[in-house]
Amino acid sequence: MQFSVRQLAEQAGGTVVGEDRVIISGIASLAEACPGQIAFFADPRYRGGLKTTKASAILIAEPSAEFQGSQVIVRNPALAYAKVASLFAPAPRVVGVSEKAFVSESAVIGANASIYPLAYIGEKAVLGDNVILFPGVFIGDRVKIGNNTVLYPNVSVMNDCVIGNEVIIHAGTVIGSDGFGFLRDGSVNVKIPQLGIVQIDDLVEIGANSCVDRAALGKTWIQRGVKTDNMVQIAHNVVIGEDTVIVAQAAVGGSVSIGNQVVIGGQAAIRDHLRVEDRAMIGSQSGVAKSLGAGEIVSGSPAIPHRLWLKTSALIPQLPDLVARLRRLEKRLDDLEKRGTR
Amino acid sequence: MQFSVRQLAEQAGGTVVGEDRVIISGIASLAEACPGQIAFFADPRYRGGLKTTKASAILIAEPSAEFQGSQVIVRNPALAYAKVASLFAPAPRVVGVSEKAFVSESAVIGANASIYPLAYIGEKAVLGDNVILFPGVFIGDRVKIGNNTVLYPNVSVMNDCVIGNEVIIHAGTVIGSDGFGFLRDGSVNVKIPQLGIVQIDDLVEIGANSCVDRAALGKTWIQRGVKTDNMVQIAHNVVIGEDTVIVAQAAVGGSVSIGNQVVIGGQAAIRDHLRVEDRAMIGSQSGVAKSLGAGEIVSGSPAIPHRLWLKTSALIPQLPDLVARLRRLEKRLDDLEKRGTR
Amino acid sequence: MQFSVRQLAEQAGGTVVGEDRVIISGIASLAEACPGQIAFFADPRYRGGLKTTKASAILIAEPSAEFQGSQVIVRNPALAYAKVASLFAPAPRVVGVSEKAFVSESAVIGANASIYPLAYIGEKAVLGDNVILFPGVFIGDRVKIGNNTVLYPNVSVMNDCVIGNEVIIHAGTVIGSDGFGFLRDGSVNVKIPQLGIVQIDDLVEIGANSCVDRAALGKTWIQRGVKTDNMVQIAHNVVIGEDTVIVAQAAVGGSVSIGNQVVIGGQAAIRDHLRVEDRAMIGSQSGVAKSLGAGEIVSGSPAIPHRLWLKTSALIPQLPDLVARLRRLEKRLDDLEKRGTR
Repeated sequence: MQFSVRQLAEQAGGTVVGEDRVIISGIASLAEACPGQIAFFADPRYRGGLKTTKASAILIAEPSAEFQGSQVIVRNPALAYAKVASLFAPAPRVVGVSEKAFVSESAVIGANASIYPLAYIGEKAVLGDNVILFPGVFIGDRVKIGNNTVLYPNVSVMNDCVIGNEVIIHAGTVIGSDGFGFLRDGSVNVKIPQLGIVQIDDLVEIGANSCVDRAALGKTWIQRGVKTDNMVQIAHNVVIGEDTVIVAQAAVGGSVSIGNQVVIGGQAAIRDHLRVEDRAMIGSQSGVAKSLGAGEIVSGSPAIPHRLWLKTSALIPQLPDLVARLRRLEKRLDDLEKRGTR
Repeated sequence: MQFSVRQLAEQAGGTVVGEDRVIISGIASLAEACPGQIAFFADPRYRGGLKTTKASAILIAEPSAEFQGSQVIVRNPALAYAKVASLFAPAPRVVGVSEKAFVSESAVIGANASIYPLAYIGEKAVLGDNVILFPGVFIGDRVKIGNNTVLYPNVSVMNDCVIGNEVIIHAGTVIGSDGFGFLRDGSVNVKIPQLGIVQIDDLVEIGANSCVDRAALGKTWIQRGVKTDNMVQIAHNVVIGEDTVIVAQAAVGGSVSIGNQVVIGGQAAIRDHLRVEDRAMIGSQSGVAKSLGAGEIVSGSPAIPHRLWLKTSALIPQLPDLVARLRRLEKRLDDLEKRGTR
Repeated sequence: MQFSVRQLAEQAGGTVVGEDRVIISGIASLAEACPGQIAFFADPRYRGGLKTTKASAILIAEPSAEFQGSQVIVRNPALAYAKVASLFAPAPRVVGVSEKAFVSESAVIGANASIYPLAYIGEKAVLGDNVILFPGVFIGDRVKIGNNTVLYPNVSVMNDCVIGNEVIIHAGTVIGSDGFGFLRDGSVNVKIPQLGIVQIDDLVEIGANSCVDRAALGKTWIQRGVKTDNMVQIAHNVVIGEDTVIVAQAAVGGSVSIGNQVVIGGQAAIRDHLRVEDRAMIGSQSGVAKSLGAGEIVSGSPAIPHRLWLKTSALIPQLPDLVARLRRLEKRLDDLEKRGTR
């Protein structure tokens, strides 16, 4: 893959200072770029790299006298980097429908799909155009998948689930396993059958080895543009609003409703049945035990307002000190009172 | 699937008020039920739904004048719902032994087993009647599996492990991977070979993408009726007693012994070698660092009695305030002492 | 497998007291050993077992009059046990290259490799001698794997990743999934393409259902001898130094650099971009929010020095008491002041 600096500037929405016909064949950091590659300058800590980099071109917010090659001037160099890098990202290899895949006769597969060897497609499944299923993918009966969606190796999509367009699901993830619902009958746990589905909307990306459980009734619903990291647990009947981001190993409890553009930190947990409104932010390792309003920022377990948590978590290491101060106070007061009664 | 209200009442162990020959073809919540479906009323917050629901029948604890259809009167509507829903839960599709599965010649497979395409069965494995192995399941050499057990896609059961009857293991779970045992020899970690097995007894259900490690010696043992959620970690040589419940992303350390009917919350962790007695309850995100007696209820990391944890976790946000009170006390005492010495 | 006590003593680097020609066919704990097996005595709590065990031989630090069989005297009985047990550990069964595996024509496979049925090997992948790939393993295009490496069932190694010699990767683990990198553009999250790889060096062992993400640029790098437990998350661009140990469900954030022989406890998390120097130790469930120097020992979330954490976590349950003492002080001071002003 090769592009001129001018083409890359167009992709990034920027303008070129210097030669724009230079051919670029890759993207790298300032420190690691070779001649023929484009780098980016977003973090002022790496300013020294502008002089020493071997990159032939750079994405940068303002022209710099320190860099000798072509400069693509962009408002947001990090974002420009993401856009330019997408040109150099290799698309998954297209393989057609392998004879070594298992495809049920009643399944319907769109144009230009790539079904790798050792993938499995159940009965009456319907797959859109350009879908890519890697080896070891399981598609249950009656599953529906939109166009341009990629499922990496060993992903399991259980019966009846629905996945939209341009969705990416990374390796080992399970969509539509049973929600965890049991009722005690004496000492025994009686299973509550999980009769619902999972619906994943367009442009969602789900990390590796994650779980999204099917609903008890109705659906577990991951809305447009949600991005989740690896090993995230989404319980039954959860709704996650558009463009929400969930970092690795976080858990969302059953029937939780999450708004749009929420950010959930790594290893955080949200208790069953809560509501988290738009743009709330939940710190890593937090335990959310109450519903959160729009834009609320919380941390800690149980979670409290983030600013308060900053203060309290700074005070906790001072506890031995505070206890000593308390003890001294008691002593002084004892002395004072003794004197007073003398 | 269709049942009369009378049939459903028998299944639920209830009695019918109103017409009992109405035919029911599904189960749903009050809000989402359509004509021809049965709903359930268990949570008084949804009382309003009794009037507005379109359900043709209802599971309810006491006859209600607000609902117009057939009423099935049961002691525990939620439990009745679980039992009735099980009638409408689709059983996994039976497929026989697929020619596209790999079955070792020395493996023994019971009657009516469903071995899906792309499942693998190792040498001398013995599978009971009605076993269902989905695509991507790996059954190691000499593994034994009882009757009516279902292994969902991409489950791996390593050599020599033993699984009982009516067990359900959800997709992506690994049974019998090596326990995490190393010894330092200078700077190097020497592997302690893991020579034991995992034994899973009847009626156990294990969530998706979980791990149950084989014992170093002897067995890791999951006893009858245990239910675990997704991404749960069970280390080597653990014993988990009957009907214990473990919520998502919890971890049980090596050689821990857990009693019957214990409840372990999500993301909780139990340190190596501890004992947790019957009916103990461990709050989510707890870190259990000491053995627990029968019926103990703990929370926090490190875990403390739950009631104490409720108090302390309410006081932690007050720490800045407490420090201010302490400072004021010191100031007042300084003033008093100065006055006293004057 | 059978060995004389003399052979076992050589393996353990010890000397025999008593008969050294006794034939041993297995290893077990003192309590569970049968005649013909060797046991070990490392933990003084089990001293009673020396008299009652049925083992024919024992690994022990000093000769004991309580045990009647052959005694192998070793400096470190636990380590000796690990070494002797390795003789009894069954090697994975060798199967050659199965015709039911999918091997791309351009892939290169070393001598004596075992490619189980239903494994997949992508284009231009290069595998060393004696490599073992279990069913459901996915090897992406251009992946390189060294000699004597074992990949258990349903492991996915994505395109271009590099794995060394004598590496063990347990079932369900994903190597080289995309790092979690997004940039907000208005309300939308733009994907930062993950163009780097994962490199895993010799003698690494990675637990089941774990994730090691590929780098955004450059490589995520797991160095020689690292051992990780199950469900561990290693984010993009992380470097983990030699012989470091990571316990189950821990998470290492993006671009974190970890030194040699570090120990990371279960469910701990390390924030993006930090440095953890050699031999640091991180307690379980800790949240590391600052870089750590060599040999530092921390616990808690946010993490603080371990000794301080021991003190503070002992004081937290006393908070209700401390508040009561504070209140009494205030009351006494009120009284004193009133008296003073009278």
